[in-house]
Amino acid sequence: MDKPLISHHLVDSDGSLAEAPSEVPKVGILGSGDFARSLATRLVGSGFSVVVGSRNPKRMAGLFPSAARVTLQEEAVGSPEVIFVAMFREHYSTLCGLSDQLAGKILVDVSNPTEREHLQHHQSNAEYLASLFPTCAVVKAFNVISAWTLQSGPRDGNRQVPICSDQPEAKRTVLEMVRAMGFTPVDMGSLASAQEVEAMPLRLFPGWKVPALLALGLFIFFYAYNFVRDVLEPYVQEGKNKFYKLPVFVVNTTLPCVAYVLLSLVYLPGVLAAALQLRRGTKYQRFPDWLDHWLQHRKQIGLLSFFCAPLHALYSLCLPLRRSHRYDLVNLAVKQVLTNKSHLWNEEEVWRMEIYLSLGVLALGMLSLLAVTSLPSIANSLNWREFSFVQSTLGFVALVLSTLHTLTYGWTRAFEESRYKFFLPPTFTLTLLVPCVIILAKGLFLLPCISRRLTKIRRGWEKDGFVRFTLPVDHALAQKTSHV
Amino acid sequence: MDKPLISHHLVDSDGSLAEAPSEVPKVGILGSGDFARSLATRLVGSGFSVVVGSRNPKRMAGLFPSAARVTLQEEAVGSPEVIFVAMFREHYSTLCGLSDQLAGKILVDVSNPTEREHLQHHQSNAEYLASLFPTCAVVKAFNVISAWTLQSGPRDGNRQVPICSDQPEAKRTVLEMVRAMGFTPVDMGSLASAQEVEAMPLRLFPGWKVPALLALGLFIFFYAYNFVRDVLEPYVQEGKNKFYKLPVFVVNTTLPCVAYVLLSLVYLPGVLAAALQLRRGTKYQRFPDWLDHWLQHRKQIGLLSFFCAPLHALYSLCLPLRRSHRYDLVNLAVKQVLTNKSHLWNEEEVWRMEIYLSLGVLALGMLSLLAVTSLPSIANSLNWREFSFVQSTLGFVALVLSTLHTLTYGWTRAFEESRYKFFLPPTFTLTLLVPCVIILAKGLFLLPCISRRLTKIRRGWEKDGFVRFTLPVDHALAQKTSHV
Amino acid sequence: MDKPLISHHLVDSDGSLAEAPSEVPKVGILGSGDFARSLATRLVGSGFSVVVGSRNPKRMAGLFPSAARVTLQEEAVGSPEVIFVAMFREHYSTLCGLSDQLAGKILVDVSNPTEREHLQHHQSNAEYLASLFPTCAVVKAFNVISAWTLQSGPRDGNRQVPICSDQPEAKRTVLEMVRAMGFTPVDMGSLASAQEVEAMPLRLFPGWKVPALLALGLFIFFYAYNFVRDVLEPYVQEGKNKFYKLPVFVVNTTLPCVAYVLLSLVYLPGVLAAALQLRRGTKYQRFPDWLDHWLQHRKQIGLLSFFCAPLHALYSLCLPLRRSHRYDLVNLAVKQVLTNKSHLWNEEEVWRMEIYLSLGVLALGMLSLLAVTSLPSIANSLNWREFSFVQSTLGFVALVLSTLHTLTYGWTRAFEESRYKFFLPPTFTLTLLVPCVIILAKGLFLLPCISRRLTKIRRGWEKDGFVRFTLPVDHALAQKTSHV
Repeated sequence: MDKPLISHHLVDSDGSLAEAPSEVPKVGILGSGDFARSLATRLVGSGFSVVVGSRNPKRMAGLFPSAARVTLQEEAVGSPEVIFVAMFREHYSTLCGLSDQLAGKILVDVSNPTEREHLQHHQSNAEYLASLFPTCAVVKAFNVISAWTLQSGPRDGNRQVPICSDQPEAKRTVLEMVRAMGFTPVDMGSLASAQEVEAMPLRLFPGWKVPALLALGLFIFFYAYNFVRDVLEPYVQEGKNKFYKLPVFVVNTTLPCVAYVLLSLVYLPGVLAAALQLRRGTKYQRFPDWLDHWLQHRKQIGLLSFFCAPLHALYSLCLPLRRSHRYDLVNLAVKQVLTNKSHLWNEEEVWRMEIYLSLGVLALGMLSLLAVTSLPSIANSLNWREFSFVQSTLGFVALVLSTLHTLTYGWTRAFEESRYKFFLPPTFTLTLLVPCVIILAKGLFLLPCISRRLTKIRRGWEKDGFVRFTLPVDHALAQKTSHV
Repeated sequence: MDKPLISHHLVDSDGSLAEAPSEVPKVGILGSGDFARSLATRLVGSGFSVVVGSRNPKRMAGLFPSAARVTLQEEAVGSPEVIFVAMFREHYSTLCGLSDQLAGKILVDVSNPTEREHLQHHQSNAEYLASLFPTCAVVKAFNVISAWTLQSGPRDGNRQVPICSDQPEAKRTVLEMVRAMGFTPVDMGSLASAQEVEAMPLRLFPGWKVPALLALGLFIFFYAYNFVRDVLEPYVQEGKNKFYKLPVFVVNTTLPCVAYVLLSLVYLPGVLAAALQLRRGTKYQRFPDWLDHWLQHRKQIGLLSFFCAPLHALYSLCLPLRRSHRYDLVNLAVKQVLTNKSHLWNEEEVWRMEIYLSLGVLALGMLSLLAVTSLPSIANSLNWREFSFVQSTLGFVALVLSTLHTLTYGWTRAFEESRYKFFLPPTFTLTLLVPCVIILAKGLFLLPCISRRLTKIRRGWEKDGFVRFTLPVDHALAQKTSHV
Repeated sequence: MDKPLISHHLVDSDGSLAEAPSEVPKVGILGSGDFARSLATRLVGSGFSVVVGSRNPKRMAGLFPSAARVTLQEEAVGSPEVIFVAMFREHYSTLCGLSDQLAGKILVDVSNPTEREHLQHHQSNAEYLASLFPTCAVVKAFNVISAWTLQSGPRDGNRQVPICSDQPEAKRTVLEMVRAMGFTPVDMGSLASAQEVEAMPLRLFPGWKVPALLALGLFIFFYAYNFVRDVLEPYVQEGKNKFYKLPVFVVNTTLPCVAYVLLSLVYLPGVLAAALQLRRGTKYQRFPDWLDHWLQHRKQIGLLSFFCAPLHALYSLCLPLRRSHRYDLVNLAVKQVLTNKSHLWNEEEVWRMEIYLSLGVLALGMLSLLAVTSLPSIANSLNWREFSFVQSTLGFVALVLSTLHTLTYGWTRAFEESRYKFFLPPTFTLTLLVPCVIILAKGLFLLPCISRRLTKIRRGWEKDGFVRFTLPVDHALAQKTSHV
């Protein structure tokens, strides 16, 4: 499961290579770091004849695959047409002595700047290399592939390798090498794109930043709110020490709020988009930027919601494991005996909890289905209708179940004065706001008159009466508003 | 994780394109809907020169990528050899005025009928287009790709695009375009297949229908059965109000029955197939259709079983959270005090529950492994032996663990008269039937005489003594009967 | 989700096939087993003209796709250039009569030896076939693909098919056929590799053997240890029968030990590797073999840890479901009443449990993130920095959370004499050893002097003052030591 199916001899003969199977193409590598070594291993495995140029070939020879020839830099660059430069940017200039020998050859820049370097230099490594060797064709490639992936091979055969260069012929040659090595080349255009290509491996979950901050903000807000209501108020008003509730109880009343609000924020932008289209009477106007970004981050928001929901379930299930729970139970029993009450039963409370728990389990089950179909390998195996059914229909069912779960939790508490501690309404009432608006709006959109108008708009109809010729199923917009 | 690695300039130069890198191939698009726009974006990004034909080019120009030229339809179709028709079927006829200009060109039909349209017309959109433009080479393609996927790029490089056409040369050209755009083209033959190709995006989990209905039916049956035994009987016989048990308790006695029966139905067809082969004395006879279908839906049945099993676990874990549980405990304690019994302990009951719980957890753990290896990305990384080990061996272990879990739950209850409420046997006894048959049959198949015969049959031996020459490991049949 | 998108007509015209689209290439198949049939189905679907050679063509014809011609062996091998041999090794020799007709043709050996055969013959099936037909070009291919996959098509288009042969031209032809059938060919070199290729489908989780044995060993050790402390000691010392604790309680004190120790063993080799590099003052020396293996099996060890952790959570949550728990609670209440103690509360115990539970849930949540990002389809969508952030940073946070979870569980118990049953220290103290060393070492490595030196070493610096020219980010080694 973990070991690559094929570790050696990976050759994918194609195009240029195959034309002359008898003559093995030669490739040079300058550098002897880990990446250089992995590169050599893979190139040898892909049927290339590899020459490595090093300043200290004797010492380095042992670290390279035996099929690769390790020699002095001057010798290494002699015959190959393509030379990989697997060195630090700061050492590029040391190659200037080889300028004459390198003239007319293809130099492949595989380097990755660190974050600091990337911000510091206004010129990408590849462009810098090109400026040093104006007679060479510089191609940027392989920087997104780790030495580890190079060595073990692309297990699933579709690792993308972005490539850019100002010389089309050189780019073509490297494209074919990438393919021969089992990766999927992606042409990124001219060498000016090298800046962008070099930034790729430096990304750290760019799409998650805002949703994660949002979730964190919601958590802090609701935690503070619950702390005031559940811990501070009893302490101030009645002098009761409930601080032991901080690690489990307060967290457990906070998590469902975060999960529930996040889930509703997945469906809100779709409602807003539909409302906007209805008001504008056309879909041929771009949404405002904030709405567009929101629409594009729904997956992340939804997954964060799904991260909080099972945590809430786990915390809830931990409640009977607490000592405080045990003590409370025993004390209740003792109190019952002492007050001579032989039978304890509150039918309404019993029903409330049974329904509340059942709805919670069902909502979590539904959310799990949504989360599973968000896995890339599953999402890819669904057609658009199936994906939209799961994400939009089942997702809305999950939202409704969560709302019912919240409502049964609240029961009549929203109307009891004793629940308004420090005049703060119960937490659950706060979280119900957005979801109820969404459910109402969805109901409205189902009214025949509105539903028909919306469908027409999405098929290209416009208020001004001009019917545009568009594709029957407007995938993109339908996708964008599929959660309405 | 969500953002495509590469969003712009995706060019995968190949074959025809690469031959003349200096001359960018021209492509026309008729239509200005979302799909047309996404198509333009991707074509521009893949290195094509795009001309869009619109009735209102000025207004539409802003919505298309700046590199695409948006002009009048008449102008747009002039020079490109390939023209994408991204319009509604009902507007195809408006193009008839362009007939002369389109003559001899390749028209790519990318349209998707809605379900109603698909049922209504006996001619596919592509065939209809071909009938309108007999001098053009019509190719059906890209309809399975959503505008969203087009725009964001095939993240994993292996989205399949089925293609069909009656003109091999036109098909070849579009095939290469598909490849250049980063998708995997799949030749579906002549244009007559367009009907099938257009039906693809309309599919809604076809393989799940029967298994889901089966699970639903089992749920309803067992829920009703448990309702009668656990709620109705106490009410009718003793006047006890146990209706509060409906949302959690009854659901929780129903879910394991469904999960357990579904799991056994995963392994039953394998046993039947083996029995059939033993009786026939050959594997060279097709199984009856119902058995074949059953064998092919085992994955879905298994996953539905796995959906119910953790729900059962969750419901069970919720039991101590119920108010009714708390009241029962306190009332029991009070009763103990009042009846002056100081120590409560029933060693047999203690052991029953401990073993029952432990087996349940283990069975669930085993099922989780099965579910995880059903994920496409994991299943693909296993060789056939590993996959069969997990699905067949571990799956059978899970079935045995579930059976033991059920047996310890039942303990001696099957033999107590008081358990036969309304003369209905306890639910667990009903569910044990099929699994026990399977476990027995599997035991029988392990007997040397039967096992040897079965192995021989699967290697191609036949009762009539004629040995056929077949492949050592008969994958397909082994697969079909791997759960035996 | 399960049905392949495209089941028929899969043709991926490419290279040689496309050159003469009018003339369909002919392929022969010898054999009529399941694999032969699936092969025929897929070849027909990929646009080949298939002739099947059988000893009993009349009877077999019904089992093959109608487009395939089933005839006598002698006739079948006449015209096709490529002939698949889909037969058992023991029947290869029966083909010798066809020797003359087969001369100069390409024979594709698709056979899979059973494990016994593979060990028994020192010559691979393909080499044996080549020795029987010295005038043919024997190519080994398709053996890793099951008949099932052949028939249903490569759903995700990247199933790898290793190929080897001594004749480059024959290999090239088969490579192109593999591609045309929708698989990814992988050149494994000469026919001598057939031995290795034939061993591939026989692998059974080779990378999991050692980690699984390790986990099993740890489980047995800790189970025995806990049995002695929790069950045997009370029985021997006080005559108390606690054997009912075996199925749940003892398992539940054992599982977290296994999970925790395994998790620490994921991070230990990284620390050792860093320490080794610091001591050696260079990274240009290979790690000892045991360390290298350890580093490569961290993923499996981590996943086994993650398998035990939720099992531990499940067992813990099952605790209040036990009868023994109910009896204990009731008895405690009765005792309270009888001893006239009206209020039971131990603030320290309450806090201990609340913190302990909360940390446990958080640690499990963190581990889930790690497990999810280990899924191939997710891991592939992360760049190296993201992957390392999750696996190294979040993983270390999970280790710290687990350590705090363990410490709060222990609280002051490590220092209470009564806890040293049979002079054995409490179990949790044993498990804390390795993790604490790791956390300390990680803290040390953060000291500026050490951190700077380590960074320099990983950028290629050496103690002897010689600076090597290497790639800025040393992926491979960073990967290997990313858990430091």
